[in-house]
Amino acid sequence: MDAVTSLSVEELRQLQQELQKQYDEYKMQKLSLDMSRGKPAGAQLDLTNAMFDIKVDYLTKAGLDARNYGVLDGVPEVKQLFGDLLNIPVDQMIIGGNSSLNLMYDTIARCFLFGTGGYTPWSKLSKIKFLCPCPGYDRHFAVMEEFGVEMIPVPMNEDGPDMDMVEELVVNDDTVKGIWCVPLYSNPQGVCYSKETVRRLASMKTSAPDFRIMWDNAYGVHYIYEKHSLEDILTACKDAGNADRVFYFFSTSKITFPGAGVALMASSLNNVVEIKKHMGVQTIGHDKLNQLRTLQFFKNADGILAHMDRLAKELRPKFDIVIKTLEEQLGGTGLLQFTKPDGGYFVSVDTYEGCAKATVALAREAGVVLTGAGATYPYGNDPKDTNIRIAPSYPTCEELQKAMDLFCLCVKLAGVNHLLEEKKK
Amino acid sequence: MDAVTSLSVEELRQLQQELQKQYDEYKMQKLSLDMSRGKPAGAQLDLTNAMFDIKVDYLTKAGLDARNYGVLDGVPEVKQLFGDLLNIPVDQMIIGGNSSLNLMYDTIARCFLFGTGGYTPWSKLSKIKFLCPCPGYDRHFAVMEEFGVEMIPVPMNEDGPDMDMVEELVVNDDTVKGIWCVPLYSNPQGVCYSKETVRRLASMKTSAPDFRIMWDNAYGVHYIYEKHSLEDILTACKDAGNADRVFYFFSTSKITFPGAGVALMASSLNNVVEIKKHMGVQTIGHDKLNQLRTLQFFKNADGILAHMDRLAKELRPKFDIVIKTLEEQLGGTGLLQFTKPDGGYFVSVDTYEGCAKATVALAREAGVVLTGAGATYPYGNDPKDTNIRIAPSYPTCEELQKAMDLFCLCVKLAGVNHLLEEKKK
Repeated sequence: MDAVTSLSVEELRQLQQELQKQYDEYKMQKLSLDMSRGKPAGAQLDLTNAMFDIKVDYLTKAGLDARNYGVLDGVPEVKQLFGDLLNIPVDQMIIGGNSSLNLMYDTIARCFLFGTGGYTPWSKLSKIKFLCPCPGYDRHFAVMEEFGVEMIPVPMNEDGPDMDMVEELVVNDDTVKGIWCVPLYSNPQGVCYSKETVRRLASMKTSAPDFRIMWDNAYGVHYIYEKHSLEDILTACKDAGNADRVFYFFSTSKITFPGAGVALMASSLNNVVEIKKHMGVQTIGHDKLNQLRTLQFFKNADGILAHMDRLAKELRPKFDIVIKTLEEQLGGTGLLQFTKPDGGYFVSVDTYEGCAKATVALAREAGVVLTGAGATYPYGNDPKDTNIRIAPSYPTCEELQKAMDLFCLCVKLAGVNHLLEEKKK
Repeated sequence: MDAVTSLSVEELRQLQQELQKQYDEYKMQKLSLDMSRGKPAGAQLDLTNAMFDIKVDYLTKAGLDARNYGVLDGVPEVKQLFGDLLNIPVDQMIIGGNSSLNLMYDTIARCFLFGTGGYTPWSKLSKIKFLCPCPGYDRHFAVMEEFGVEMIPVPMNEDGPDMDMVEELVVNDDTVKGIWCVPLYSNPQGVCYSKETVRRLASMKTSAPDFRIMWDNAYGVHYIYEKHSLEDILTACKDAGNADRVFYFFSTSKITFPGAGVALMASSLNNVVEIKKHMGVQTIGHDKLNQLRTLQFFKNADGILAHMDRLAKELRPKFDIVIKTLEEQLGGTGLLQFTKPDGGYFVSVDTYEGCAKATVALAREAGVVLTGAGATYPYGNDPKDTNIRIAPSYPTCEELQKAMDLFCLCVKLAGVNHLLEEKKK
């Protein structure tokens, strides 16, 4: 298709008519499809069903009876499993419950209630700001809103957040207390942070001594097309003399079963002591049987990696459909830009400026639910109204193809409508 | 044995010598026994091992795939299970993770961070006090210390806390924001709150409009000798026009596996909305597969009650040993008082005044670990130094008999030592 953006008013009107007709026909189909959340499909979850056959061996090598109370920070061999997988020293790791989001929320809550590193509790300070690389993950932003943290958007580049801007923002403002990062296959763009980005984050000079990196490595082993490696942030921070700067998070929600997996966090030895002090008041311990179930299902880190190959194989055809359909139907139109991700759960697209909300609304009206436009920005405010997060994992391939056909049509229709409005002015 | 308290100095000296000799013989045995925590024994946990054979049926009646994300407050049929068991309306219930302590901690944290019922967050107030019926549960007190709450001890009577004192403390002081209650088979005394106590708690006039009852029904179905019923606090609060006053907690930690069970809380509809608003930012949801595993193991509330019969049968011989040994070896000595509990996990004893610490120290030196003396009081401060919590569940009957024999000896030796000291003055 030729560049729609260079058409005349007359040509646009004709195209609008054609597109509207096609759109009306879609509406007759009464579709009901969901591409809103990074939720695995049933067929993907089936690949893990053998986990239900695991009869947990509850006595650990060290003679611990995991049916009973005890062990705040995780069963040692399970810590070893994840240590091997993620290259994290086990003494810097704390295994939590089923949700890494819960670990992140509680981490922020502790900073507010008690402070971290011996510094003033954030609840006692009049203003707290966090840097939020955008587009980003709406649930991170929701945690910030919950605690009344002012979010400062930072643009994402191909190798991570715009580090020049980050460095400038943190160096002179001690109310800037942290940054949210999804460093591998970021949500939603699939950006992988470069070594240089990680090193700059670890070593940059911050005005706040209790500045913290919320390192949500949600997709740490979740490749689809190509495996990327990630510079070790724990070591980078330590080497830069900022060992306490990073809180690292991971979970098996998108490895085994969402909401029934195992979450973990990692940090400096100091921070681990501090966290365990509070966590030991909060709970006697997390679910050790589910930790062992996970270990006994995978056996070792290679077992997890082999499983990720199977999941990638299951997800790849869906990402293929999204990318192929976007390229075929919108390539050259000037109405959409996107980058093919190598992993993660999303394809992030940018419509023609000012068209994201209209596109999502059109799709919803025709029965395809997308993540709300703006959700990938703090306060739901996408200043150019361009970004849409496509989550291809939940529908079947057949449903996804239908949904993507409709989506492309909506991008075009919203784009043409917008161009005609612009020409009127 | 005759009243030791009325012996002459000479008689006491002779007894001291005999007891010391017996004690030294015990020390030679190098015992290593633990009666410190309410931790089930392996043999007790074996009674639940069939749970490992459950192959979770993850599709619910309503067609929910519990392997996937979703459902913040619990799988409906699991809520129904606990609703039937505890007589709690399902719309007033939120199922959490594996730990009711975690739900309690988070509830207090939310009151501090965000306030409750629209009132000022407690972190913004200069002073917060809580009433702590004593002796009580050390982990409740630890949560209070964590948040800097001033704990006011309230004596326990046979039917619950001294309600005259409670009413007096709450009516004129708006910094008193709550009270901790373990209303059935209380930790450690096994006190069961009377209807009258529950009604007075629900209806008393409090100066703080956001006064809250932390209702930790930890032993709600955990009878050993006799089943007691508990007045419905949710209804009592509602009937008194104080629906929002109570946060109710329960878990299956001592029904299935400690630390791998299912915890829940309940409250007014208003409070449930408020809690879910925050919890929905904190997590996408708790482990639904473990909820279903629990349901499918027990099938219904009667299944849980039948299981509690088996657990009671397992625990009863241990409580028999404790009670029989205390009566036989210390009855009439004037050195120990205790009440036989009808359920729960503990036997609470009171030594001769000023002898609890010395008794626990003697037992520890001879290889028997008891809960630290003072632990049942806020700040570890038992003003009369008399209370000791005995936890009979973990050792085998044989071990327990040995430990109790030694314990009684330590009570006597500490008592005689103390009496001799007193006579010196």
